[in-house]
Amino acid sequence: MNLMDDIFIHPTSLVETQQIGRGTRIWAFTHIVKGARIGRWCNIGDHCVIEVGVKIADNVVIKHGNKIWEGVTLENGGFVGPSKFSATTTPPKPRCITQTKANYNTRQWLVTTRIHEGATIGAGAMIVAGTVIGEFSVVSAGAVVIHNVPPHALVSGNPGHIQGWVCQCGKLLKFHNQFARCSSCDVSYTKSNNRIKVATF
Amino acid sequence: MNLMDDIFIHPTSLVETQQIGRGTRIWAFTHIVKGARIGRWCNIGDHCVIEVGVKIADNVVIKHGNKIWEGVTLENGGFVGPSKFSATTTPPKPRCITQTKANYNTRQWLVTTRIHEGATIGAGAMIVAGTVIGEFSVVSAGAVVIHNVPPHALVSGNPGHIQGWVCQCGKLLKFHNQFARCSSCDVSYTKSNNRIKVATF
Amino acid sequence: MNLMDDIFIHPTSLVETQQIGRGTRIWAFTHIVKGARIGRWCNIGDHCVIEVGVKIADNVVIKHGNKIWEGVTLENGGFVGPSKFSATTTPPKPRCITQTKANYNTRQWLVTTRIHEGATIGAGAMIVAGTVIGEFSVVSAGAVVIHNVPPHALVSGNPGHIQGWVCQCGKLLKFHNQFARCSSCDVSYTKSNNRIKVATF
Repeated sequence: MNLMDDIFIHPTSLVETQQIGRGTRIWAFTHIVKGARIGRWCNIGDHCVIEVGVKIADNVVIKHGNKIWEGVTLENGGFVGPSKFSATTTPPKPRCITQTKANYNTRQWLVTTRIHEGATIGAGAMIVAGTVIGEFSVVSAGAVVIHNVPPHALVSGNPGHIQGWVCQCGKLLKFHNQFARCSSCDVSYTKSNNRIKVATF
Repeated sequence: MNLMDDIFIHPTSLVETQQIGRGTRIWAFTHIVKGARIGRWCNIGDHCVIEVGVKIADNVVIKHGNKIWEGVTLENGGFVGPSKFSATTTPPKPRCITQTKANYNTRQWLVTTRIHEGATIGAGAMIVAGTVIGEFSVVSAGAVVIHNVPPHALVSGNPGHIQGWVCQCGKLLKFHNQFARCSSCDVSYTKSNNRIKVATF
Repeated sequence: MNLMDDIFIHPTSLVETQQIGRGTRIWAFTHIVKGARIGRWCNIGDHCVIEVGVKIADNVVIKHGNKIWEGVTLENGGFVGPSKFSATTTPPKPRCITQTKANYNTRQWLVTTRIHEGATIGAGAMIVAGTVIGEFSVVSAGAVVIHNVPPHALVSGNPGHIQGWVCQCGKLLKFHNQFARCSSCDVSYTKSNNRIKVATF
């Protein structure tokens, strides 16, 4: 049941890869496909599918019911909320298998989707294939993301738009004169060209 | 396979609680976590997860694929449509496990979500943690609910807004001078301050 | 494990129907309910449920996590993207089992939903019961479809609206004077009354 002593694999799950880091837990009825790579101290809920070619770094939390598709990379500390997150690497306008079968084998349809360090994907969010979700950004519950999300952005709606900016700790930031200090953890940020970054003094 | 003679538990499901009322049916590949409480005559579909601490009353219908999270209470006669309903009790701005681990054990992040008697959650609706879904309200298919839903309200859209009012029987009501009588079941309602209630004569 | 030599049924899946055409593959933890009919060369992913009465033709691709409900018909070559597609045949305003139990047995609530040949349902789309999805149409990721979708239409948003028109091959069409030729595959189309069809010369 365990690849190593400190990995937990639920007896009802189906784990076909050997590449799982220590401390990681895989829960019930979840399918980890051969060729997926999962780092250390991750927590992958029930009824998930982690497809061939997916790369998941360390400390990533994936809630019940997520299906993660080939081409997706999750960096350290990502949080993927429950159930409605779908990152597909199928083409933007996929067609039936008969039409795409020749195409399928070329793998030219494969695009990459990257969830950067510390990003949060809310419950029911939808991530279109090929987008980049910036570090420490927050995709709100129910948001439909069709464009790249900048670091620390808070995105919501269908289609998703930037509604604000959030600290590494998740706190909403209030900017005055392109400058904000997090009221929770005291990290400071500067804003320029509709992008923010940690202030360096 | 049965806790009692009149409970049906599908052989592929994983039921860890003893607290299931009579007449309830649990379907395939569903995981009822230890500590969940489920009432009588409920019907819980395939691929569901009912988490620790969830309370489900009597006559509740939960369609395939729903994940119900700690902190959620479903009162009598709720109907939770298929697949996209997600009630999460994780914090509004959850962060990765390394950031929240200390926080996690305090359980200060736990908020409660309550689906009141007779409410209907449409297919693909998204319910944000901490909201209250009023009695006999209808959350339309695909609605993203981020605010409390008053009793008998019909909510749709992303974000969800009140589009009208519905009878206990599910029929859309037409108000004239703050008064409506259901054309289907003859129950009467009065409206005041953008809330409705059953008329008492 | 196989109904016939050239059908693949994953050992963790639960297949209760005998009506599966040759070349079809059924993947992990998927439940095909008795009475469902599935054609040839289909590919049905993990954690799906195909309900009683569902009819699926040939060459249909159904990605992980889809729940297909009684009353749904999928014609040849349909592509159902991952995870958030929900076609429910429950009534538009379903109520709890106690209220609908008498109603349930009459089956008057059953409406039909038809996905025509070659249509594409994007990741996370939501299809309301009773709608018709026209041939070779594309329902974009995250779209909430509450009206019929004409053939070749591209629909997105919540609620879904027609945003453009697509070729059989999936390419977006540009119309000039009610006429378009696909830049990818050279098929020509005419437009009339906000509907398009293949041009005949």
